Amino acid sequence: MTTVTVKASQTYEVKIGHRLLDTLGQEAAALLKGRQAAIVSDSNVAPLYLDRVRASLEGAGFQVCSFVFPAGEEHKNGQTYLDLLEFLAQRHITRADALVALGGGVVGDLTGFAAATFLRGIAFVQLPTTLLAAVDASVGGKTAIDLKNGKNLAGAFYQPKAVLCDLDTLATLPQAVFADGCAEVIKYGMIGDPGLLEQLETTDFQADPEAIVARCIAQKRDLVEQDEFDTGARQLLNLGHTVGHGIEACSSYQLSHGKAVAIGMILVTRAAVALGKCPAEVLPRLQGLVRKYGLPEATEYPARDLYEKTLSDKKRAGNTISLVVPTAWGKSQLTPIPVAELLDWIEKGLSL
Amino acid sequence: MTTVTVKASQTYEVKIGHRLLDTLGQEAAALLKGRQAAIVSDSNVAPLYLDRVRASLEGAGFQVCSFVFPAGEEHKNGQTYLDLLEFLAQRHITRADALVALGGGVVGDLTGFAAATFLRGIAFVQLPTTLLAAVDASVGGKTAIDLKNGKNLAGAFYQPKAVLCDLDTLATLPQAVFADGCAEVIKYGMIGDPGLLEQLETTDFQADPEAIVARCIAQKRDLVEQDEFDTGARQLLNLGHTVGHGIEACSSYQLSHGKAVAIGMILVTRAAVALGKCPAEVLPRLQGLVRKYGLPEATEYPARDLYEKTLSDKKRAGNTISLVVPTAWGKSQLTPIPVAELLDWIEKGLSL
Repeated sequence: MTTVTVKASQTYEVKIGHRLLDTLGQEAAALLKGRQAAIVSDSNVAPLYLDRVRASLEGAGFQVCSFVFPAGEEHKNGQTYLDLLEFLAQRHITRADALVALGGGVVGDLTGFAAATFLRGIAFVQLPTTLLAAVDASVGGKTAIDLKNGKNLAGAFYQPKAVLCDLDTLATLPQAVFADGCAEVIKYGMIGDPGLLEQLETTDFQADPEAIVARCIAQKRDLVEQDEFDTGARQLLNLGHTVGHGIEACSSYQLSHGKAVAIGMILVTRAAVALGKCPAEVLPRLQGLVRKYGLPEATEYPARDLYEKTLSDKKRAGNTISLVVPTAWGKSQLTPIPVAELLDWIEKGLSL
Repeated sequence: MTTVTVKASQTYEVKIGHRLLDTLGQEAAALLKGRQAAIVSDSNVAPLYLDRVRASLEGAGFQVCSFVFPAGEEHKNGQTYLDLLEFLAQRHITRADALVALGGGVVGDLTGFAAATFLRGIAFVQLPTTLLAAVDASVGGKTAIDLKNGKNLAGAFYQPKAVLCDLDTLATLPQAVFADGCAEVIKYGMIGDPGLLEQLETTDFQADPEAIVARCIAQKRDLVEQDEFDTGARQLLNLGHTVGHGIEACSSYQLSHGKAVAIGMILVTRAAVALGKCPAEVLPRLQGLVRKYGLPEATEYPARDLYEKTLSDKKRAGNTISLVVPTAWGKSQLTPIPVAELLDWIEKGLSL
């Protein structure tokens, strides 16, 4: 097992290893004051792991209730959030109690936001069951729901009490869901870890998942500790995400986050090459990796549509939008550009 | 004009004086980065002041939009909150922009919660137009919405950028709304300011509203600075509120907050006297003040109903609930009691 300690506004441990779902009860008993826990999960994950997680918590003396909602990004919305809050109130969850997020990024984001705001904040623990949630969404305290106008437009910065990343849950993921996580793993390489990129090129993820997941989380930890509230260094994590969110919005969230991020990374890299900000050889190498891990590299949406959806993204401030731009293999840079130039970037990013 | 500076996680000024609605534009221009402002108000207040506030902001160079919702506590709910978030997203409000809360506690609580969570937090300014909002809700950063199961069950701690308390707006309040605020003013006296109680007994509020409002806000400032996140000293501000929220819930929020707090203060004082925790003479003096300011002192709801509704309140943690108990004239004390004793307190508080 590997442990990464995150020292943000709240200090907590991220544990990466095997059979961690079964040790949750003991961990939670040591961390939490209250003895009520509400497990939040979705219709994909609950049938697989809910009983084990419940048993682990009950074995450690917790009274357990559970809230299961239909799987899918389209349910990470205001209505599911309100339903969850009402559920917690009905069950008399108190400030001493805790939520347990059992699932992927959708479950973690929604549960974290409910934990941040129910009674103005109660404890929560993350149990990521997808690669994407393990390496990205579950660590760092960004919680959110989507609005009709865009993804993650409402939320809070709110750190979990602990993150238990049980690698056994990743082994059984459908290929497409696993690939989504790979997009974020590649992103970590592209923003600051050429060694990780080499590992991804020369071996396979499955050769040593614990090391790769831990490497990603350690990099995220470094950025979160520098900039918890996302006003500077942390924004590097948005590589591929700015236009990626526009792509997701264009698809009415039918295209997955990881796929959109992969396309977004290719798009911004191609534009950076065209604008002379990045060496030309970075693009084909990145395309090679994206293909190797089963991810798409192009989108059919027209530049104007992507531009308009991207503008709704929360990364805009006044008339400036922050783009993360690759400047070398394994190196990226935060680049604020005037909103007026964004369309040109997108057009250059799309042209073949 | 009186200025009270609050040094919480964010430092800001509370200004108390006349014609402040008209100076908002200049104040906001000096405080904010962006040049878009969304005014949030309700159907009672918007017809009175929205045009003036809009003109003040536009005069200072802001692009202004407004969101007006039906007045009343029953609209401080999840649906109005989601509608407001979607409105902000549609209008492309960015992280550099701000919300302006124009109204009483309902408007301030809802707007503050939307500001705390839209894009994970944008700036907001409070323009309280009721006495209750001026002395209590607008200062200190508690924001919230109600759930079906109880009041203020979801929210955030989130400080405003500024509070402008225009006393002219208080002069035209309906008597019942003004009385609501008086309940909070009396509360400040009861928790730690016997001098304020004497002023309320011997003169009338209208003799010097600026001084009384500033005195309340200064006391709140002291408690918020000691304990911004409400884990200790700040909980003194809940005098009359714990059972008060139960009374409001029993009435399905038809009884106003101030009236419920007045009854709650009487109830807890009567119980404290019965239990030997408070000198007997405190009760009739408090009853005299409550009557003088047009507030009720009794409720018809049975103890068992009040007990159950009170248990849903967020001040409960595990099997303990924190009561604020008057121990002398102008002095109260935070008293954690086992949940099992709460019914006895309520019964003693109700018995004549």
